[in-house]
Amino acid sequence: MTSTNRRIVLAARPVGLPREADFRLEDVALPEPDEGEILVRSRYLSLDPYMRGRMNEGASYAPGVALNEVMVGGTVGEVVTSRHAGFVAGDIAQVHGGWQEYGVCGGDEARKVDPALAPISTSLGVLGMPGITAYFGLLDVGLPRDGETVVVSGAAGAVGSLVGQIAAIKGCRAIGIAGSDAKVTYVTQELGFAGAFDYKTTTDYRVAVGELCPEGVDVYFDNVGGAISDAVLAAMNVGGRISVCGQISQYNLSERESGPRQTMLFIVKRLMMRGFLVFDFAERYDEALQELAGWVSAGRLRYREDVVAGLEQAPAAFIGMLQGDNIGKRLIELD
Amino acid sequence: MTSTNRRIVLAARPVGLPREADFRLEDVALPEPDEGEILVRSRYLSLDPYMRGRMNEGASYAPGVALNEVMVGGTVGEVVTSRHAGFVAGDIAQVHGGWQEYGVCGGDEARKVDPALAPISTSLGVLGMPGITAYFGLLDVGLPRDGETVVVSGAAGAVGSLVGQIAAIKGCRAIGIAGSDAKVTYVTQELGFAGAFDYKTTTDYRVAVGELCPEGVDVYFDNVGGAISDAVLAAMNVGGRISVCGQISQYNLSERESGPRQTMLFIVKRLMMRGFLVFDFAERYDEALQELAGWVSAGRLRYREDVVAGLEQAPAAFIGMLQGDNIGKRLIELD
Repeated sequence: MTSTNRRIVLAARPVGLPREADFRLEDVALPEPDEGEILVRSRYLSLDPYMRGRMNEGASYAPGVALNEVMVGGTVGEVVTSRHAGFVAGDIAQVHGGWQEYGVCGGDEARKVDPALAPISTSLGVLGMPGITAYFGLLDVGLPRDGETVVVSGAAGAVGSLVGQIAAIKGCRAIGIAGSDAKVTYVTQELGFAGAFDYKTTTDYRVAVGELCPEGVDVYFDNVGGAISDAVLAAMNVGGRISVCGQISQYNLSERESGPRQTMLFIVKRLMMRGFLVFDFAERYDEALQELAGWVSAGRLRYREDVVAGLEQAPAAFIGMLQGDNIGKRLIELD
Repeated sequence: MTSTNRRIVLAARPVGLPREADFRLEDVALPEPDEGEILVRSRYLSLDPYMRGRMNEGASYAPGVALNEVMVGGTVGEVVTSRHAGFVAGDIAQVHGGWQEYGVCGGDEARKVDPALAPISTSLGVLGMPGITAYFGLLDVGLPRDGETVVVSGAAGAVGSLVGQIAAIKGCRAIGIAGSDAKVTYVTQELGFAGAFDYKTTTDYRVAVGELCPEGVDVYFDNVGGAISDAVLAAMNVGGRISVCGQISQYNLSERESGPRQTMLFIVKRLMMRGFLVFDFAERYDEALQELAGWVSAGRLRYREDVVAGLEQAPAAFIGMLQGDNIGKRLIELD
């Protein structure tokens, strides 16, 4: 076993879209687990849009990463040393390991992963945080009913691609909004979305939403925000629900964007909008994971992993993801 | 009994704030009730902000008033002729009589009012649509809990003045936003609001909200919208709820206003915003009326009526109300 640990730290706070120079790769000594902790060698690191918020100074819903500290992130890998009764060396654990080869985590916050049930990478995707986010964000916040129309922005991403499929499982018509022709093809041809459009080549979002949703929109699962959301809101039916999961169009803005005020529409259409974090449903993760695993086994829930090899690639892969160059769950595979 | 009926019709569709020339007073023949209908001589006509929306072309949640047709509005008065089994001449009925002396309404849509229980004008205010709106909009949409801070915009209006008092009855700290010093004094000195500020003389709404709500805002009951709402939203606590009842700051705009996009805040603070119409709760009006009447009798719920005499005064009184010149429920008293 090596005695050093490669990691990526936050070198500078980005203004707008992060640049590679905002990150720094460095070698440090291997961390030691304290009593109750485990040392995990990461096999996969999850890259997620929320990380952009953590690069800012000051707290959002969670504190920002300090300068020169390791970037936060979910990981999955092998337990090297355990000082927690629930784990032994060799176990596979999903932890908040950060952007590094080895992470130390409290055993109580770690989740044991059975590699016989599914590839361990899925513990960061369809059978992990993105899957659980899609599950509760759609079912508990969006409250879809059989026969309704569900629109998903960021439709080809880790969360959005699952939302549309879960909507279809629940008897809804899923419509996706995504950022390339390949993504539109993916969600409609491979994932069973009833329709989708590419917002990058569409000039009038309202027309596109109207054509794909002739009976209006009952549930909008929003990963993106901005002008795309304005167009979907205009098509909402009376009693419609908006589940706000992400606002990736806004994450890199230095100043808050303005847009048309939408609140009148909430009265006229009696809309309900609710923002959520997956942690709000922490007590019920097992329920979601069981359902998701059942749908995956039954072939009803498909997923794609967009795997980039090498920790040193993480900054570029993350920056690319913020610009939408991934399809499905972006992961870094560590050697 | 007279054989003519004075009424006010929509003469022109307003652009921006209505002018008196957008209305026309005229004499027409007394209407005749059909089978199942009642003819009611109005004693009071209710003036409400929602009427501004009905002056526009095209439907909002309800169709607009046609040009040269009588303005819509709630009224209360004496049944003159009844062709409905539930009413006899002399009964007091609350109906949708419109801006006119005599209105014909379906008896099934009329509500019998007992003049021995309360002044009949209250059937258009605290014991009518505004009271029911405040009741359900606060309790069922805003979901206040004991000890929470509730902010109400339009705090001295027919609905807002009741919302703050119901919040206090439920153990909350009520903070009002209103448009004059007299209104601020009214809600804090007479109605028991814990605090209030005058948005017309306040330069920084955020500072004012912050000072009055040192523990943040849990429920925001919004009658106004615009920049006032931006400031309240910025102070919302995690898990806060926004009950959208009205947007009077927007009703007279010819073009939709822009404002800072607020959706990110919904994720960070896990906010829930819901728009509603009182009709959404039609099955439960009796529950609200009983509770409201109980609080009024017990002296726990106070109200003020802002009565203007004469049907011909309705246009000016309505235009004034849209500019906030009323305190409490604005009514027209008919001779």
